[in-house]
Amino acid sequence: MAHKHLTLLAGCLFAALGSLAQQQLGQRSRVQSPVVHDDGTVTFNFFCPSAQQVSVRGDFEEIHSKTLPMTRQEGGVWTVTTDPLNPELYSYSLTVDGQRFIDPANSYVNRDISTLSNIFIVTNYADDRGHLYQVNNVPHGTLSRVWYDSPTLGQQRRMTVYLPAAYDGKKRFPAMYLLHGHGGDETSWGDLGRASQIMDNLIAEGKCVPMIVVMPNGNPTCNAAPGWWHEGMYTPDGNAFNRRGAKATMEESFMDIVRFVDSHYRTIAKRSARAVTGLSMGGGHTFGISRLYPDVFDYYGLQSAAARMQKNDAKFDEQMARLFASKPKLYWIAIGKEDFLMQMNNDLRTYLDAHQYPYEYYENDGGHIWRNWRIYLTLFAQKIFK
Amino acid sequence: MAHKHLTLLAGCLFAALGSLAQQQLGQRSRVQSPVVHDDGTVTFNFFCPSAQQVSVRGDFEEIHSKTLPMTRQEGGVWTVTTDPLNPELYSYSLTVDGQRFIDPANSYVNRDISTLSNIFIVTNYADDRGHLYQVNNVPHGTLSRVWYDSPTLGQQRRMTVYLPAAYDGKKRFPAMYLLHGHGGDETSWGDLGRASQIMDNLIAEGKCVPMIVVMPNGNPTCNAAPGWWHEGMYTPDGNAFNRRGAKATMEESFMDIVRFVDSHYRTIAKRSARAVTGLSMGGGHTFGISRLYPDVFDYYGLQSAAARMQKNDAKFDEQMARLFASKPKLYWIAIGKEDFLMQMNNDLRTYLDAHQYPYEYYENDGGHIWRNWRIYLTLFAQKIFK
Repeated sequence: MAHKHLTLLAGCLFAALGSLAQQQLGQRSRVQSPVVHDDGTVTFNFFCPSAQQVSVRGDFEEIHSKTLPMTRQEGGVWTVTTDPLNPELYSYSLTVDGQRFIDPANSYVNRDISTLSNIFIVTNYADDRGHLYQVNNVPHGTLSRVWYDSPTLGQQRRMTVYLPAAYDGKKRFPAMYLLHGHGGDETSWGDLGRASQIMDNLIAEGKCVPMIVVMPNGNPTCNAAPGWWHEGMYTPDGNAFNRRGAKATMEESFMDIVRFVDSHYRTIAKRSARAVTGLSMGGGHTFGISRLYPDVFDYYGLQSAAARMQKNDAKFDEQMARLFASKPKLYWIAIGKEDFLMQMNNDLRTYLDAHQYPYEYYENDGGHIWRNWRIYLTLFAQKIFK
Repeated sequence: MAHKHLTLLAGCLFAALGSLAQQQLGQRSRVQSPVVHDDGTVTFNFFCPSAQQVSVRGDFEEIHSKTLPMTRQEGGVWTVTTDPLNPELYSYSLTVDGQRFIDPANSYVNRDISTLSNIFIVTNYADDRGHLYQVNNVPHGTLSRVWYDSPTLGQQRRMTVYLPAAYDGKKRFPAMYLLHGHGGDETSWGDLGRASQIMDNLIAEGKCVPMIVVMPNGNPTCNAAPGWWHEGMYTPDGNAFNRRGAKATMEESFMDIVRFVDSHYRTIAKRSARAVTGLSMGGGHTFGISRLYPDVFDYYGLQSAAARMQKNDAKFDEQMARLFASKPKLYWIAIGKEDFLMQMNNDLRTYLDAHQYPYEYYENDGGHIWRNWRIYLTLFAQKIFK
């Protein structure tokens, strides 16, 4: 009798909750996936009785992606468990009978150019890399998608602005400009780069000073990320809009961004409170910006940078001389041992050495990947404004 | 020779662009999908030679989802083209040999509770519904994820704030509070509800006044949307965290939100410049808020509302009497003919009629679905602050 009563009660509760529900488009998955275990192993589950061959492909190793074949269990659930993984944010997808899909049981995804991948985090202790990338119970900054006017490009453009938790409209803060790579946009550093989580956590731990982080869109022919401007929901390929002429380059139009930020946010509007750093193409932009505006920023970070040198070019030499005569507080070059832009960065370092221009160099494992850019952001943020 | 030269040039260009690329996780799709044609028909394409049966399932009809079987072409591309679709934002997924997936060729997705669905927009002319939901070449407002302190709930909580393009930190604006349903969160109205697109377009067309839109999280036991607070990347089911006790209800804690907004944004902090509206559970919240704080808002919108009456309850009757004695400018009830909460809304209207409490009623086709809530937002936004 008591049991029947409980069952009825549960039924009523369910109905009551159901009656408040917003629409859900599609059934919830029957399995849970991924399941991150305490020892760092991760189990993937996928229900598909009809499939012939299923595997998981993810960035589970330092350099290359790894494919893990899944095994079919009775009932049609495919499963595989990894070896213990290091603390990290991982990306993966499923391959079902030769076709790439995202895991239907995991609603956490990142878009990288035109593809979606699932993500999960492995973390073992309170100060490892996984912990730094997750949302912890610390004060959180505000993340805004802001439209600004770029007179140089003749456009309304979108940027992402992170304001630290301490931002109250009264105190002033330094600003880091954080630039994405080719194929990316103003959403890349926040999504793939975990920028707001990294900054929230570093600031809460007292490892970096509270700062404003400005993440603009580095494609002068796009006003915003795919789907967020008037070209509609096109398939991003990183090149489509670059075929059209831009009024100016990213570097040439960059002061529009700095002027907007200084006039709309409580920045410390001077050189010692401005940093600029970017990855790949954004590293190239940082390189160009450092030569065009040597008095605007005191901290530069070139991450896996497409830092193309203009050899035997008097104007380039003059720009570099002016830049280093201005004595920037930090010229930081970071790259992975397997990065395909290593030669370009070696050439730059040879040039800097030959001219006795001071810089800091950081080299780690791995290639041209987001895992490294999250590490570089973490390191660079701790070096500036101190 | 000329031809060879061009090929070489193309190769160099490709290499040059490739060298600037940020990592792309996974191959770009081989097919384009969906393709929206000028006549409103839509073609879906899916490359999967090994599949036995593939279909598209989407909300292509007014009320029910529709399944469209796809046909296998030579080479392994499955395809289907719809009948002409009305201007609208549509959601869909693929079913491949019995398993639900999102379309690998379409990186535009919305999350609804725990499932992802692809989206696309059909629009035929400059003032149809599809046009209203897309990003047009008009001034855009700022969309922010903001953390605020809720003393009543003893939590740091996240909300979404839309500031109209005209917001410049000097002029003051009215504020609409826009509440989600059960299973939703502070991202729902922005993503599934297209709130920023609707507001940008209505404001640009002069159909509604520029206003601040505040989209809080209506779950008192969650600080933020899944993945955006310290519970990690759990699978949202809409109920998990409701099983824990909350310090107070959404309605009881609601003035924390209003106070934060009035003290952090340039609002017109008076009744005639405040509106509150919500869908389903959020309609229930709106109903409760209207009874608890009859002097705070002048405009109420109950959308497919879980507006549970407390019958033969003297306190409820007294609250309702006080509310309508305060003469709110608008008490608006909107619901679809097929909504499963129709009876609840009929009961409310019977009560309002019996007491001669004035309200406006809007009934349209369809049920408890986002298509209707986008329509209700569009209508409500045009009725307020005028």
